[in-house]
Amino acid sequence: MIEMMTDGALAIPKLLLDSYAEIGLDEAQCMMILQIFKYIKEGNAFPTPNELAGKMSCDASQCSNHLRELVQRGFLDIVQEKDGSVYSESYSLEPLWNRLMSVHMLSRTQHQKIEQED
Amino acid sequence: MIEMMTDGALAIPKLLLDSYAEIGLDEAQCMMILQIFKYIKEGNAFPTPNELAGKMSCDASQCSNHLRELVQRGFLDIVQEKDGSVYSESYSLEPLWNRLMSVHMLSRTQHQKIEQED
Amino acid sequence: MIEMMTDGALAIPKLLLDSYAEIGLDEAQCMMILQIFKYIKEGNAFPTPNELAGKMSCDASQCSNHLRELVQRGFLDIVQEKDGSVYSESYSLEPLWNRLMSVHMLSRTQHQKIEQED
Amino acid sequence: MIEMMTDGALAIPKLLLDSYAEIGLDEAQCMMILQIFKYIKEGNAFPTPNELAGKMSCDASQCSNHLRELVQRGFLDIVQEKDGSVYSESYSLEPLWNRLMSVHMLSRTQHQKIEQED
Repeated sequence: MIEMMTDGALAIPKLLLDSYAEIGLDEAQCMMILQIFKYIKEGNAFPTPNELAGKMSCDASQCSNHLRELVQRGFLDIVQEKDGSVYSESYSLEPLWNRLMSVHMLSRTQHQKIEQED
Repeated sequence: MIEMMTDGALAIPKLLLDSYAEIGLDEAQCMMILQIFKYIKEGNAFPTPNELAGKMSCDASQCSNHLRELVQRGFLDIVQEKDGSVYSESYSLEPLWNRLMSVHMLSRTQHQKIEQED
Repeated sequence: MIEMMTDGALAIPKLLLDSYAEIGLDEAQCMMILQIFKYIKEGNAFPTPNELAGKMSCDASQCSNHLRELVQRGFLDIVQEKDGSVYSESYSLEPLWNRLMSVHMLSRTQHQKIEQED
Repeated sequence: MIEMMTDGALAIPKLLLDSYAEIGLDEAQCMMILQIFKYIKEGNAFPTPNELAGKMSCDASQCSNHLRELVQRGFLDIVQEKDGSVYSESYSLEPLWNRLMSVHMLSRTQHQKIEQED
């Protein structure tokens, strides 16, 4: 119960819930992004398709396909780093946040325009 | 930008992300629940199918079907209140949280059992 | 326990924790701001000194003094609205967020300058 | 701005804001706990008095005193771990959460008693 109090909540960007459909994501893709976001926050920046499938209603091979599609459509980046002779990979949601921010800015600008014209 | 700082985040229960699949929800249903959770937090406890459809990749009639199914399967309650001669309705996610909590408790008990047997 | 899961967490701006001292607030003032922020989020935008004192280690008259000082120093606004013949008042933390944002922007600019000079 | 959206918020337990005064903490001590909580969440489980002083309105030696007092009064634990020949130390807020939970449970029990008597 203490864990529920101190580590039971994840602070997610409202803008994702508001605008994922507008930038062309469906519910399954948005949920996958929320799962990746949670893994990153908890210190695992490169969850495997198996780990994701353990929390979702699709299997590991479907998760792989979803991940590939998110990368191909430019919502998700795979970042490679080399530390000495050790390579590591991590997911970055930066491209997704950039798109959401653009949509947000655009709708604010249009909003202000309409208000000025009134 | 200030709004993003002070009202840009929604604190959601991690347990929902961890266990929605385990209790038989798919991604579209879980996203609908997150949308309803957000509406409730923002003071609108009975969002219409139209309002939900405006944020999701399904139309109002599909949203209606999803809502009906969530109610029928016992994840969502509709609470009716009478204030004088005015009736109002609101959604309650209480049944969902109860199920998630049961699953959580059960898995903790099993975990402890295994640890004791080791 | 369900309440702890669904309503136990408050998402607060990290920037407040990082920079309240820098903008000239002490710990008691920052805690009072956090309390006001929480009341606003929960739908009570004008908590009384008594309500605040009920959660803090100072009494109602000390809370009044703190509130007055926060207003005088330009961290807190009192907004008056008239709805028909009914006046209502609410606190706005807008001036505080503006200051925090200025400090944040300034420190980022200086940071970039230093990086460019290197 | 993207960082503000994805990493600008910290989800803190409301119970801390509601009941720190009740368990005998003042505002400065509660703010120090919030700072430690934030450091732990960000992966630094043993912030130095210097690091804390950098975010607070007291200097490093005052921070040391506050930390010592929180430990002595049983709100804060220092946990020592040995990994091979390397010792590491970290703060645990477990004792604090336990106290807050006790206070919360007690007040709920009393509440229910009063309701039953009515």
